[in-house]
Amino acid sequence: MSTLTFPATTPSVAEDCEQLRKAFGGWGTNEGLIISILAHRDAAQRRLIQQTYAETYGEDLLKALNKELSNDFERVVLLWTLDPAERDAFLANEATKKWTSSNQVLMEIACTRSSHQLLLARQAYHARFKKSLEEDVAYHTSGDFRKLLVPLVSSYRYEGDEVNMTLAKSEAKILHEKISEKAYNYEDLDLKTDPKDEFLAILRATIKCLTCPEKYFEKVLRLAINKRGTDEGALTRVVTTRAEVDMKIIKDEYHRRNSIPLDRAIVKDTHGDYEKMLLALIGHGDA
Amino acid sequence: MSTLTFPATTPSVAEDCEQLRKAFGGWGTNEGLIISILAHRDAAQRRLIQQTYAETYGEDLLKALNKELSNDFERVVLLWTLDPAERDAFLANEATKKWTSSNQVLMEIACTRSSHQLLLARQAYHARFKKSLEEDVAYHTSGDFRKLLVPLVSSYRYEGDEVNMTLAKSEAKILHEKISEKAYNYEDLDLKTDPKDEFLAILRATIKCLTCPEKYFEKVLRLAINKRGTDEGALTRVVTTRAEVDMKIIKDEYHRRNSIPLDRAIVKDTHGDYEKMLLALIGHGDA
Repeated sequence: MSTLTFPATTPSVAEDCEQLRKAFGGWGTNEGLIISILAHRDAAQRRLIQQTYAETYGEDLLKALNKELSNDFERVVLLWTLDPAERDAFLANEATKKWTSSNQVLMEIACTRSSHQLLLARQAYHARFKKSLEEDVAYHTSGDFRKLLVPLVSSYRYEGDEVNMTLAKSEAKILHEKISEKAYNYEDLDLKTDPKDEFLAILRATIKCLTCPEKYFEKVLRLAINKRGTDEGALTRVVTTRAEVDMKIIKDEYHRRNSIPLDRAIVKDTHGDYEKMLLALIGHGDA
Repeated sequence: MSTLTFPATTPSVAEDCEQLRKAFGGWGTNEGLIISILAHRDAAQRRLIQQTYAETYGEDLLKALNKELSNDFERVVLLWTLDPAERDAFLANEATKKWTSSNQVLMEIACTRSSHQLLLARQAYHARFKKSLEEDVAYHTSGDFRKLLVPLVSSYRYEGDEVNMTLAKSEAKILHEKISEKAYNYEDLDLKTDPKDEFLAILRATIKCLTCPEKYFEKVLRLAINKRGTDEGALTRVVTTRAEVDMKIIKDEYHRRNSIPLDRAIVKDTHGDYEKMLLALIGHGDA
């Protein structure tokens, strides 16, 4: 379900590092070369490249990329190159710092990663930010949003096959009753209407993320692309976090829903190296 | 800080299994032999014994112990033999099922284990009970207790050395103000007085567990022992969960506070094989 494509024969890690070094050197940066390497390596390969690059040149690859690139292209390359857990920690930290009630990134990370991935992200958060994710979320949020987000980012969901259907049905029944009665202050639901219905929106999105993440991500992409001026932040986030996971399904869902393939929508809305990197990650020309 | 004592030369795992098998066979069970082996092996050794016993005799060691032993002695041996993470999962599950507002076991497990140990317990909980610990805690608790316990059992606390003292001080100031004002409904504190002040009690115990666990455990032991009839549940839990961790400090604290050594207090309050097992675990005759 990943959209990554790989060269017929993958060069050695040492060769990749050498080529990247070459791309940074000389007159101007060779963005095409950077894309041709990094956009076509999986997480394990990118991790090795980072390690080897640091050992060989005594310089952090991310710092080098940060120095050479700029704007949206820089952000997509940096986010992509990061290890998934570190990327999630970075995105989550950023989201706590600029948290508003319409920011759904924390919920998205908490609900669309597996229990184990979320845990790795929380460990990466400790390592990088010297505090716990739930602590930062509690600090930066308030009210109903805090009540929803703190447990979400702290959860370690059971993902096995054995489900207690009796319990699930009784819980579904309670939720149905509370929603019918609009008893939104019910503890297990806690859905007070706020002026902009933003809490209701994040609650709906939470359910979507937990049940059909591809529909949630399709919608984030749709809103990001249809927006006047494009929301590059959302576009970059979804592409870098999903390319290796379920981007194929998200692309299908996007096409079905918008009657235009995602790559064509991206071509219309973006340009330059940023566009090229996005297209490479979503497997443009592949299919 | 562990109170475990080991034989001068530890027998091989195969020998241990053979001796245990012998202790179960023949006329009556040889409780002394069981104690002399299991009470003097650390968690890694006990895990190996369990594995080897199952491989050699095609029978689960815990089931064999369950068949041969009874009452308090059975419980202390079974809890002790379990892997620490499995033991915590078992104790936490039991606590959710018989949860009352005076039951502090969930808080104790959440707050006195390291982040990593708590995580292992949550993984063991998935494996054994096919659901998540936080789900069960939310299901069995309500009100302020739920608001306190769900985040506690879900937490993955940062345990590094770098602490943001500015933030810590500002949080301490807020708490101090709220407590002075008796503003117990403050969100970060949430300390409504309930008829029996049980919520206040668990909140105090939480702070104690997080800051000086040995004082918390000393108090649990003191109350368990001073009680008319002894609270064997609490006594067994503290001894089995702390023997390998910080029982030495807890013993010192107990002696300081009660002017009687813990082993002497246990001798006065318990008897038989149960007494012998507890004494073996807290390093009686050692010192």
